Amino acid sequence: MSSKVTLVGAGLVGSLLSIFLAKKGHQVEVFERRPDYRKMGAVGGRSINLALSERGWRALKAAGIEQKIKDIALPMRGRMMHDIEGNLTFQPYGKENQAIYSVSRAILNEVLMDVAEKEQNVKFHFNQRCENIDIKDTEATFLNEEEQTKNRVKSDIVIGADGAFSAVRGELQKMPLFNYTQHYLPHGYKELTIPPNEDGSHKLAPDALHIWPRRSFMLIALPNTDGSFTCTLFLRFESDKEHQEAFDKLTSDEEIISFFETHFADVIPIMPTLLEDFKQNPTSSLVTIRCAPWAYQGKVCLIGDASHAIVPFYGQGMNSGFEDCFYFNEFMEKQLKKNKNIDWQELFSDFQEERIPNTNAIADLAIQNFIEMRDRVADPEFLLRKKIEAKLHEQFPSRWIPQYTMVTFSHLPYSYALNTGKKQEQIMNEIMKKEDIENNWQNLDWESIVEQLQS
Amino acid sequence: MSSKVTLVGAGLVGSLLSIFLAKKGHQVEVFERRPDYRKMGAVGGRSINLALSERGWRALKAAGIEQKIKDIALPMRGRMMHDIEGNLTFQPYGKENQAIYSVSRAILNEVLMDVAEKEQNVKFHFNQRCENIDIKDTEATFLNEEEQTKNRVKSDIVIGADGAFSAVRGELQKMPLFNYTQHYLPHGYKELTIPPNEDGSHKLAPDALHIWPRRSFMLIALPNTDGSFTCTLFLRFESDKEHQEAFDKLTSDEEIISFFETHFADVIPIMPTLLEDFKQNPTSSLVTIRCAPWAYQGKVCLIGDASHAIVPFYGQGMNSGFEDCFYFNEFMEKQLKKNKNIDWQELFSDFQEERIPNTNAIADLAIQNFIEMRDRVADPEFLLRKKIEAKLHEQFPSRWIPQYTMVTFSHLPYSYALNTGKKQEQIMNEIMKKEDIENNWQNLDWESIVEQLQS
Repeated sequence: MSSKVTLVGAGLVGSLLSIFLAKKGHQVEVFERRPDYRKMGAVGGRSINLALSERGWRALKAAGIEQKIKDIALPMRGRMMHDIEGNLTFQPYGKENQAIYSVSRAILNEVLMDVAEKEQNVKFHFNQRCENIDIKDTEATFLNEEEQTKNRVKSDIVIGADGAFSAVRGELQKMPLFNYTQHYLPHGYKELTIPPNEDGSHKLAPDALHIWPRRSFMLIALPNTDGSFTCTLFLRFESDKEHQEAFDKLTSDEEIISFFETHFADVIPIMPTLLEDFKQNPTSSLVTIRCAPWAYQGKVCLIGDASHAIVPFYGQGMNSGFEDCFYFNEFMEKQLKKNKNIDWQELFSDFQEERIPNTNAIADLAIQNFIEMRDRVADPEFLLRKKIEAKLHEQFPSRWIPQYTMVTFSHLPYSYALNTGKKQEQIMNEIMKKEDIENNWQNLDWESIVEQLQS
Repeated sequence: MSSKVTLVGAGLVGSLLSIFLAKKGHQVEVFERRPDYRKMGAVGGRSINLALSERGWRALKAAGIEQKIKDIALPMRGRMMHDIEGNLTFQPYGKENQAIYSVSRAILNEVLMDVAEKEQNVKFHFNQRCENIDIKDTEATFLNEEEQTKNRVKSDIVIGADGAFSAVRGELQKMPLFNYTQHYLPHGYKELTIPPNEDGSHKLAPDALHIWPRRSFMLIALPNTDGSFTCTLFLRFESDKEHQEAFDKLTSDEEIISFFETHFADVIPIMPTLLEDFKQNPTSSLVTIRCAPWAYQGKVCLIGDASHAIVPFYGQGMNSGFEDCFYFNEFMEKQLKKNKNIDWQELFSDFQEERIPNTNAIADLAIQNFIEMRDRVADPEFLLRKKIEAKLHEQFPSRWIPQYTMVTFSHLPYSYALNTGKKQEQIMNEIMKKEDIENNWQNLDWESIVEQLQS
């Protein structure tokens, strides 16, 4: 039997989930706070682009829309490090045929909404701010801020896919025994742009994620299909004794230019709108949110950023949200095998039991990876580590899988990747202490290294 | 120069802080959500009693009211463990002259308010629910729920001493970069009573904190001056495969009586109102709250449970709040030595830098101590550990201070107690592995043990 579902949020996760729900026959009404920017001519919303990897692809495939998205995605085969002198070092993400895919958040969201709307049992409502949810009665109230009208919606279940500052979570938070954490990094981020060449080609290698690692801060750039790059500067909000460089020190044109000349000299010639972008674009914060439980009985459930917002440094925010949708769909199928009516309480319970430990793990991994990206990737020792690990993986494809590969190119649980990565790091620390390792690494006793990991 | 201070909350910490502020010449207006229960004849509010220890006493002494409180406090010199057969084991908390003091929360609060009100520059307002605070303008709005009148108060600074569910913190939480955690234990608690004998004497030894440790749950009892004991049952809310005993299994009279007969047989004869108390009193939850920052510029600051609510198992909730007041006063004095006008921004900054790491540490310690109280104290090996540690402390009073003593009978920072306690535990783990330690412990090489801790 089909259920009436109120889905709060038409972002990436909400839109994808509506497709899965519709395909199982449920009546889905999606309420989105923002206007329908598909009708606004130019692409609105955030210009940010995201890195799609294996977990995201699997979910898109299960929803039958993998190819549609492939058409708008650009492969990035590795990291291109820009050192302070402008020298480049390329480090592949995985094996030769492996890549992560740069895709525009806005365009991806449009495609997902278009596909969802073709399902006759999905209906989108825009300009609908969630004002209140009666959790026990599964009744949601939305305010149309344009028309100043209220919309009270009663349904069988309410799903909150309404992002890091979720209104649905805000209601759950009022229930007893709701555990909740929000934690901000001292860093903020600001988006900048590298436009295409006149002929529409990219000004930097288009098949890489570019990183300018500068220890306590960094700049990155991801390619767009139109030849441009979307760049993001990650930098502390406030300077202190240990950290001289911070957003609070970059207020005048001179300070901004001087900062870029000192640290990112090679981007100045290719960023003609640097000053305007820097001053116009907001400085945003980086929050990690965790909570438990994600559900109330069989009535309300959170998904995506609403339940587990993470920092962007492992490129897994969207991918973990899409993986949520994948598992949600799996558990719907499990229910349907057992009986005709979905037991939503059991489904939500299965869902959070599967996802909470794993999304906590990717939250930790994402924070760890910030240090790796801004600091360690610039270190020759680190590059050697990666080479040794790549060699181990080549020889023992299933017995030594580098952590980045587990997270990005596999469906192994994030918590397994976190724990195995810790063991691998300990083993690698010992190896890196070996005398003259930079010259002798080809002669390591590979078999015994892999055995250590299994033991 | 004096400042106009809005203090939200007239609980223990708010009332004590108002005394310190008044003595420094500030104009203090205290707004309390509840009515003035001093005017309600019988003692209202929560009947709970608390354990005052050294940190609390130091703050009361600095406020000049130590003796007033001594008069209403009962010393508890150790833990009296009640095993399942009703056998008693006494374990002293510290040296012979050391005790913690049971005091009624309600009576203590009354005394503090009475003392504060004698200061001409302190004014209390009751029935005032904090509705909103304009943080940047330091303007607070209170609603008198009885009279349905609103009260808008502008002042130089606003201090939130309004407890674990602080409205002031709720406002700070809307600011960017506010880190926040609320974490509930799976256990709840319920208060019960052991009345006095007919002659007004106590039915159990009055100079001890009584514990019935039962591994995953426990009952405790603290003496009152009127001959009664206030008891608290700590038990999981929900049963599961591993934990058969939980509040959700105690719904009928038969289930309640059978639970007590099985686990606490010796209290049934001395708890004549067990069934009524059990059914009438609420089951409350146990939350740990942490946040940072505690202050906004020189305008708003949190103190006590509002900034660091902890679970009650180390008896340090009130003591850490009183220690907050002590340090707040110290930092006021530091300011007054530098200049005539207090720089509140600098003061709040000093205050939170001193207190956040230490209140985080006591939050961890309090959770740890739950396991100790409900499980480990029943273990003969644990009692031997405590004996060995007491012996070490006797021989090296300043070089080996047991963790409980650091927390309860010293002013050493909580974070020092946490870290030193971890080292002590590792050393003690090795000692307890020694062959036949229960018979040979008197012959340990004490000097070398203490050296290990210092190394």
